[in-house]
Amino acid sequence: MSNNRTVSGMRPTGALHLGHYFGVLKNWVEMQHEMEAFFFVADWHALTSDFADPTRIKGFVPELVMDWVASGLDPQKCTIFQQSQVKQHAELHLLLSMITPLGWLERCPTYKEQQQQITNKDLGNYGFLGYPVLMASDILIYRPQWVPVGQDQLPHLEMTREICRRFNHFYGEYLVEPQARLTPAAKCPGLDGRKMSKSYGNAIHLGEPMEDIIPKVRGMKTDENRLRRNDPGNPEVCNLFPYHVLMTAEDRQAEIRQGCTSAGLGCVDCKKILLESLERFLTPIHERRRELESRPDTVWDILRDGNARAREEAERTMEGVRQRLSFDF
Amino acid sequence: MSNNRTVSGMRPTGALHLGHYFGVLKNWVEMQHEMEAFFFVADWHALTSDFADPTRIKGFVPELVMDWVASGLDPQKCTIFQQSQVKQHAELHLLLSMITPLGWLERCPTYKEQQQQITNKDLGNYGFLGYPVLMASDILIYRPQWVPVGQDQLPHLEMTREICRRFNHFYGEYLVEPQARLTPAAKCPGLDGRKMSKSYGNAIHLGEPMEDIIPKVRGMKTDENRLRRNDPGNPEVCNLFPYHVLMTAEDRQAEIRQGCTSAGLGCVDCKKILLESLERFLTPIHERRRELESRPDTVWDILRDGNARAREEAERTMEGVRQRLSFDF
Repeated sequence: MSNNRTVSGMRPTGALHLGHYFGVLKNWVEMQHEMEAFFFVADWHALTSDFADPTRIKGFVPELVMDWVASGLDPQKCTIFQQSQVKQHAELHLLLSMITPLGWLERCPTYKEQQQQITNKDLGNYGFLGYPVLMASDILIYRPQWVPVGQDQLPHLEMTREICRRFNHFYGEYLVEPQARLTPAAKCPGLDGRKMSKSYGNAIHLGEPMEDIIPKVRGMKTDENRLRRNDPGNPEVCNLFPYHVLMTAEDRQAEIRQGCTSAGLGCVDCKKILLESLERFLTPIHERRRELESRPDTVWDILRDGNARAREEAERTMEGVRQRLSFDF
Repeated sequence: MSNNRTVSGMRPTGALHLGHYFGVLKNWVEMQHEMEAFFFVADWHALTSDFADPTRIKGFVPELVMDWVASGLDPQKCTIFQQSQVKQHAELHLLLSMITPLGWLERCPTYKEQQQQITNKDLGNYGFLGYPVLMASDILIYRPQWVPVGQDQLPHLEMTREICRRFNHFYGEYLVEPQARLTPAAKCPGLDGRKMSKSYGNAIHLGEPMEDIIPKVRGMKTDENRLRRNDPGNPEVCNLFPYHVLMTAEDRQAEIRQGCTSAGLGCVDCKKILLESLERFLTPIHERRRELESRPDTVWDILRDGNARAREEAERTMEGVRQRLSFDF
């Protein structure tokens, strides 16, 4: 079965920042024009780590959808829905749990990694181990041909593909084995050069007003070897320059590079140019967001429509799944 | 919250025998008159071990319900339903998976035991480890006060109670911690004195015709020390006598005991009495079963009504569960 469909999701864990935009969302915005796309708020997934205090998830759901739509996702072009409102995911999760070898989950590289790295949360629960089973259900239930992933998420997609093959082996060829659509490695680093992350305090959020961004950019460290204005700088080690690559026009980038390495352009002026680029980039996002905020029903209408579309498609898949398991009563 | 409700289920894995009747079903039949009772066909549970070839499960579902109703369960008095037709179980299963510590499951005594004993099936899957989570969902979703269990199932119920407490600890007192209702230890041994089990070939099925039962009873070993008709026998070591205890009138039992120990009653005659008792016991069951078989829609009507009732109750619980998790969108 060949189609031209994609599925992807994000956990509702807070406001999105430039790292999310350039790493994932920009790619989603492009894909919605190229194929049938399902994008979902992975609220059940958020429970795997935030089970002890899930109250904040509720507020993050509409925030996430607002960030998406403000960034260019068009609910007329793609299906935007909420995982927990399509109960079929839970049914497929239960069925796939029956055929997923424990060893696959225990050996999943991100499983061990996260258990070691995240020490402030209890990750010793059954559902945390089963994260890839839920992810497989989220994807396979829409039988997409494509799943957009970054290089680091390949092991998870591979698990989805293995679970898919095992299902088809037991019950006959039915679920579609999705292919990885590797997202271009356009990473937006944090203000300090590390990975952009809310918890590092080095992020610029998509909804953040310019007056908050200005002092952040002014405080950014550039090339630390450039001690004086008249010293030449090196864009390759500057925290600022990657932002120009993402947001400043190409001809302008060349000028900046030239000005920096020849000491013709100082960091203060370079930051001014970046602030202009940021403003040009963020203004339409902010405007769309203000519009959405002024009509709070819009987000819920988008989700209601998307949930209905997703449910229909998920139920169609489940009918076949139940049939193949002889569970079609 | 105090109620007078009970929930219990059986896996649809084949025809029921006397061991099931006296060990479980007889108790269910009594309970339906004493409290609000939900009895379900645990078809999703059957997948934990029969995932590789689930086609037989489908036929066993109506068979199981016929055995129940023929044995005295009254769909007007209790709710008879099918687990896989109440999708809310899968949703609660997913939510409870997030809060159930892996260690609880790994240390569950029956988990290790079954993995060691059942060697002809692959029990290394995620869903098999999570069996007690699904069981907890099946029970807690009806908020019953009572769960009928045999002594050997107490660890499983204890797990359900622990998961219940953990839910209430995180999200506020809501789910009801069910109490064990220990079933009277009326065990019906197999024809050879071991546990009655289809796989041992020592069972009398509830639907079995008398002409098949007669040679089975005739072939039963009695007190092996009683070599001659004139030797006195010992009912305590006889495979037959426990059946009299279950199915023969009490005054008649006393006569048999007296006749056996005094050599007044021979084993052949004792078996004749038992066959009479069996016929008296099984005839109404067979008649009700024939009636059900003659109108095959009846079983599906019973399930359709029961599923609707169960769904309503399960959905009511889930509304509260979602609310407490702030997942009420």
